[in-house]
Amino acid sequence: MPNKSIPPGPRDERGVLAARILTAARGAFAETGWAGTTIRAVARAADVDPALVYHYFGSKDGLLDAATNPPQRWLENVAKTWTTPLPELGGALLRLMLGAWADDEIGPVLRAVLQTAAHEATTREKLRRVVESSLMGVSQLGVDEHDRMVRSGLISSQIIGLAMMRYVWKIEPVASMSDDEIVVAVAPNLQHYIEGDIRRR
Amino acid sequence: MPNKSIPPGPRDERGVLAARILTAARGAFAETGWAGTTIRAVARAADVDPALVYHYFGSKDGLLDAATNPPQRWLENVAKTWTTPLPELGGALLRLMLGAWADDEIGPVLRAVLQTAAHEATTREKLRRVVESSLMGVSQLGVDEHDRMVRSGLISSQIIGLAMMRYVWKIEPVASMSDDEIVVAVAPNLQHYIEGDIRRR
Repeated sequence: MPNKSIPPGPRDERGVLAARILTAARGAFAETGWAGTTIRAVARAADVDPALVYHYFGSKDGLLDAATNPPQRWLENVAKTWTTPLPELGGALLRLMLGAWADDEIGPVLRAVLQTAAHEATTREKLRRVVESSLMGVSQLGVDEHDRMVRSGLISSQIIGLAMMRYVWKIEPVASMSDDEIVVAVAPNLQHYIEGDIRRR
Repeated sequence: MPNKSIPPGPRDERGVLAARILTAARGAFAETGWAGTTIRAVARAADVDPALVYHYFGSKDGLLDAATNPPQRWLENVAKTWTTPLPELGGALLRLMLGAWADDEIGPVLRAVLQTAAHEATTREKLRRVVESSLMGVSQLGVDEHDRMVRSGLISSQIIGLAMMRYVWKIEPVASMSDDEIVVAVAPNLQHYIEGDIRRR
């Protein structure tokens, strides 16, 4: 929310309004998906003129693209997490995910990406890039490139399924378990994908 | 497709047309979600008059509801799979899921449910019921009711995440792995949820 007592200059105002529009857009995309979201509804939720949304983001595609860009801070967190020693990596990845969903800035972005990826090629491509670059960007995993990609993909499948159940669909009792309970139950399975034997011998 | 050489009677014709509408509806809901699906487009894809869709299913809600009802055959498969001895249950559940997605009748239903569950309370409720009744309907799992539900929920999180990656978002290399590779890599993790220690000691 802009601080009304200090009127922002034109540059600041643009930043404030753009951020407000993006927040509204993430909520709309996550709630009603790509097809159910209109520029008009986003503008109304952000309390701006629809023309301003077009002026800033060009189109609904441009708005979706901007609204689902992962924040730099998240990418840095991800990169740092991957430096965790392998024996603790499973738990660290889970804590990263649990923290991200609870984060006021990152949570809504992840939700908007997951909710639109099913129907939008743009977001699906972005999901693929986020998964490949953030969840698969680890050189220390696996015996070769293919093995590394398989392990990263399986890690993603567990983390994403957990996020869908817990945060998007809110299916009990997974939705109400504490973060610690989740880590204790699930981290060993991520460790299996990280360093276990995942091929037929 | 109806057999044109044997004109169906009124009852048969109704069944044939309803099935054709439901097939088109599953495709539309899976492709474009709830908000992006129109009765008109479904009618066009099914090659019937839109009025017939309203006549048979009442509304878009009624159509979604009918299109996402799991076939009896699937429910029977699920019930049978849960009688598998615990040490082989993880692999059996995975084979069930892999078979279901490849099935011409069940695959589109599962896809339509997953794709609309994010935005539609009706389908989310159905997903919850399907997960709770089919994935959680096992009395042999866990030490008590809560433990059983937690274990079933975690099993679902892995199976659903795998299905999203492999069949909905088609993220490589998970999308192209053979069924056998998937079972070898993932079944041990389901076994951890089925009979492993999932609480802090």
